[in-house]
Amino acid sequence: MNEFELIAKLTQALPANQTVVTGAGDDCAVLDFGLPDRLLLFKTDAVVEGIHFEKGAPPEKIGRKALARCLSDIAAMAGTPAAALVTLGLPQSFQPETIEKIYAGLNALAKKHGVAIVGGETTANPERIFISVALLGTVSRGKQILRSTTEAGDAIFVTGELGGSAAGKHLDFEPRLAEARWLAQHFPVHAMIDLSDGLAGDLRHLLKAGGLGAELFKPAIPISRAAKAIARNTPSAKTPFAAALTDGEDFELLFTVAAGDAVKLLDAWKRQFPKLKLSCIGKMVAGDSIMVRDQTGAQRLGVHGYEHFK
Amino acid sequence: MNEFELIAKLTQALPANQTVVTGAGDDCAVLDFGLPDRLLLFKTDAVVEGIHFEKGAPPEKIGRKALARCLSDIAAMAGTPAAALVTLGLPQSFQPETIEKIYAGLNALAKKHGVAIVGGETTANPERIFISVALLGTVSRGKQILRSTTEAGDAIFVTGELGGSAAGKHLDFEPRLAEARWLAQHFPVHAMIDLSDGLAGDLRHLLKAGGLGAELFKPAIPISRAAKAIARNTPSAKTPFAAALTDGEDFELLFTVAAGDAVKLLDAWKRQFPKLKLSCIGKMVAGDSIMVRDQTGAQRLGVHGYEHFK
Repeated sequence: MNEFELIAKLTQALPANQTVVTGAGDDCAVLDFGLPDRLLLFKTDAVVEGIHFEKGAPPEKIGRKALARCLSDIAAMAGTPAAALVTLGLPQSFQPETIEKIYAGLNALAKKHGVAIVGGETTANPERIFISVALLGTVSRGKQILRSTTEAGDAIFVTGELGGSAAGKHLDFEPRLAEARWLAQHFPVHAMIDLSDGLAGDLRHLLKAGGLGAELFKPAIPISRAAKAIARNTPSAKTPFAAALTDGEDFELLFTVAAGDAVKLLDAWKRQFPKLKLSCIGKMVAGDSIMVRDQTGAQRLGVHGYEHFK
Repeated sequence: MNEFELIAKLTQALPANQTVVTGAGDDCAVLDFGLPDRLLLFKTDAVVEGIHFEKGAPPEKIGRKALARCLSDIAAMAGTPAAALVTLGLPQSFQPETIEKIYAGLNALAKKHGVAIVGGETTANPERIFISVALLGTVSRGKQILRSTTEAGDAIFVTGELGGSAAGKHLDFEPRLAEARWLAQHFPVHAMIDLSDGLAGDLRHLLKAGGLGAELFKPAIPISRAAKAIARNTPSAKTPFAAALTDGEDFELLFTVAAGDAVKLLDAWKRQFPKLKLSCIGKMVAGDSIMVRDQTGAQRLGVHGYEHFK
């Protein structure tokens, strides 16, 4: 049983109540607490030393990343973040200065996005730093964008460039909050997810949630400079295309709109966000697999996204 | 710099926004999201293998405890819990059955209190299980009970019996949710906290928040059977009274009311909760120290509550 199979099994048995609009299985939980115009978004995520950052990484960037991952999930629902709690698991040998720097990075990103840090806990985790962030946000009632509401024929879009995040971007990526809210306000976005497990893995989450397959056009997939540099400098590395498909932690937005909106969206995006690339990389189709097409033909995608447990 | 000093320093620099009614430093954060009749309560707490439970503890009880600690904090604000997220840090060698049992214990307690489990994350924490729970609840607007609003002359009350929790109670204590809501509905409770660091330590939190001292009447402090048994069977153990003052994880309620309400409260409590002891253990006084009085006189309390870092 791998991580995803276990989660699927556990998810079936979770207790619910009348506040739950969307429970486990999307980027955030969506809750109805009776606000007339808004729903609540609720998310937790963790970063662990040696897993999500190397021992010795700049502590400001570690703190920043711990919050940024949750912000990216709020973005994937087209929401607005509001308040966060921070749980720190620390070795006994922790340096107070390190913790202050973790908070400095976290606080700076929180201020940038108007997020209040309203408390948290510290506890011992003797072997390594463990930071869990819980984030509360809101979304206009009915404007939340789920994973499951994609349709056959939809055009598939991705922001930014993919692959090679481990070379640095994973510590200083920009959560796409403003872009996601603009999208939801101006276009009927059908489904959205943030890329944390890699394009192939996260696209499969969309496909599974929507009961569909996808056809990707290989030359349209935006590959990062970092992925190309790694492939050039490391003989044993993945190809840049494989890196763009399977490297984790891009934290870009993957979303679908009706095919008829695609050209208008690309035009409007260029005017609104001239510095951030938006790529139409394929379309949703019937079936349950990912086909990759280029000038020479199409083949089924066999590689999987990054999995935390094998 | 110990845990509490570091937290105090960090807390001063936390970003805020217009949603924050009460930020870091109380049992829960209190947030105003614009609900006409209610405020939100927001809390995270973690349990770590080898720190909060022994390797080999029944996994159902581990999961139960992870949620129960947060529920106890909601109780300390006189709130009602609504929805929780669970972050699991797991060694690579995790047994899926263990995780299912952790969730079974957590889910059973959630159902009992009407709490929805709306998702969570799993990640690797190679050396030990780390469970962080984030909990969202509500409280009637203006009815939240803080730590800081105690007054000189107040009578100090504690539920249940104290000390010796490590012998078993720490894994199966009952969060005092119904009791706290009943208190807030029927009496003007001035201040409240749940006992996690031990009576002496948590009373000091109340004193510091309220700028007061306290006088405890030694014979009135309720000592658990477990604390007495440990003292009887272990020659090197604390006295039962020291255990009641300084053992952590009682998860009882410590609160204050005006002295004039004390007798009425004790009578009403006996009728409402005949199975749960309520003890009036002393009074709030001017100053900043804890004096312990018995038939022979009074002395200043020098011992400290449980601290996670020394």
